[in-house]
Amino acid sequence: MKSHTAYKTFNTAERRELIRITDEVQQAVDDAAISEGLALVSAMHITAAVWVNDDEPGLHEDTLEWLDKVAPPSWKPPANDVAEALSPDPGDYRHHRGGEDNGDAHLKNLLVHHQVILPVTDGRLDLGPWQQVFYCEFDGRRSKRMVIKVLGE
Amino acid sequence: MKSHTAYKTFNTAERRELIRITDEVQQAVDDAAISEGLALVSAMHITAAVWVNDDEPGLHEDTLEWLDKVAPPSWKPPANDVAEALSPDPGDYRHHRGGEDNGDAHLKNLLVHHQVILPVTDGRLDLGPWQQVFYCEFDGRRSKRMVIKVLGE
Amino acid sequence: MKSHTAYKTFNTAERRELIRITDEVQQAVDDAAISEGLALVSAMHITAAVWVNDDEPGLHEDTLEWLDKVAPPSWKPPANDVAEALSPDPGDYRHHRGGEDNGDAHLKNLLVHHQVILPVTDGRLDLGPWQQVFYCEFDGRRSKRMVIKVLGE
Repeated sequence: MKSHTAYKTFNTAERRELIRITDEVQQAVDDAAISEGLALVSAMHITAAVWVNDDEPGLHEDTLEWLDKVAPPSWKPPANDVAEALSPDPGDYRHHRGGEDNGDAHLKNLLVHHQVILPVTDGRLDLGPWQQVFYCEFDGRRSKRMVIKVLGE
Repeated sequence: MKSHTAYKTFNTAERRELIRITDEVQQAVDDAAISEGLALVSAMHITAAVWVNDDEPGLHEDTLEWLDKVAPPSWKPPANDVAEALSPDPGDYRHHRGGEDNGDAHLKNLLVHHQVILPVTDGRLDLGPWQQVFYCEFDGRRSKRMVIKVLGE
Repeated sequence: MKSHTAYKTFNTAERRELIRITDEVQQAVDDAAISEGLALVSAMHITAAVWVNDDEPGLHEDTLEWLDKVAPPSWKPPANDVAEALSPDPGDYRHHRGGEDNGDAHLKNLLVHHQVILPVTDGRLDLGPWQQVFYCEFDGRRSKRMVIKVLGE
C-alpha cells in the first residue's frame, strides 16, 4: 500500500468563492504513483466545503443564492422572509457572541459536506463526464488549508 | 492490498426513483474477495445521490416530498410558498439558460450527498440493522452510471 | 495493509445530544498501529449523524435550532411557519404510520450525513485546528452503535 498527502492553502479575495481543484487532486494522485485506490479531499476548516458538481457558472450562482436562503448569513439582510425565518431566533447566531460573524458558514459546511472521496482507476480520478471537484469557500479572505490523502497501490 | 471496481448503469422509467442496491454492493465486495476494507459507492452524475437509509416506502415518500420543498424543481408548480421562496429569484434556475430543467437535481445531489463509504468486516458490509444502500435518481429516464470501488485485504 | 475495527455504543439521556468523539477515534487509530491511512467513522443507525465541526456550545444550539426548522419534528409544535410548511403535507410523516415518531431524525441524518472519513498522518488524525468529531444523536434514549474502521500501514 502506498500513501501520499498533499496540502493546499487558499486565501481567497472574496468572502465566498468556488475554486475548481480537479487538476490539483489528479496531481496528488500522480505524485502518489498509484494506479488503484482512493483520494480523500477534505477541508481542514469548518467554514468551507469540498464538493463534486458541474463547472457551470449559472449553477454556481444558483447554489450560492440557495445556500444563503437555507443557511442565512447575519452579516447582510435576509434574502427573503423564509431566509429570515430560518435564521436563529435569538436575532443572531449564538456562535457570534464570541465576536465572529460566520455562523452561516458553519451551517453551509454541514449542509453540503466538507469532504469527498474519489475513486482512482488506472491512475486517473474515476469521475463522470461532468464531475468536477471544487473547494467551496464560505468565509475566506484569510489563509485556510485543505488536505488530499491518496491511498492505493 | 486488493482493489476491485464495478460500474452499474441505471436508466429509470421515472424522473425520480430510489433503487435499493445493497446486494449489488455486497456482490462487488464478494468479487473483490476481501475480508477487511472499505467500499466506496458513488454516483458518477451530479443529479443523483447515494445514501444509506431505511427501506420504508412511507419514509421514501416523505423524503421526496421534503426534497421538493427544500430544493424545488422548476418544471412543476412549487409545493407551497416556502418552496417558492427557496426557488431562484430570477424566476428560474440560471443553470436552465442552456436549455436544461434539472437545476433542482443538482441541489438535491449536494444536499444529500452523492456518495457513501461502507466498512467491510469479515467479508460483509458492516451495516446496522436498518441500513440499506440506495441509488437516488433525481433526473432519470436516461443512462446514468455509478461506481463501486472496493479496497482492502 | 493493516485494518482495525472498533464499535462504540451510545445510550443518551436526552433525545438529542452531541457527543465529542475525537479522542475515541484517535484511540482506534492508535490501536490500529498505523502511521498513514484513513479512519471511517459511521453511525450504524439512520437517525443519527457523525460530523466534524467546532466544539462551541453556541454553535451547537444554533445548529439544533436550525435543523428543527429545516427538518421539523412532529412530536413538538413547529418552530415557526416555515418549519410548518417544511413538515409533511399529510399532517404527519408517512413513516409514522408504523407507530414511530422519528421521521425528522431520518431527514436530519440525510441532511448532515451519517459519516466522515478522516485522514491519518504520522499516526495522528490529520485535522484542522478547530475540527472536532461529533456523534450527533437525533433519536436517542436507546442503545445505538457507531463503527470506526481504520485502514492503513
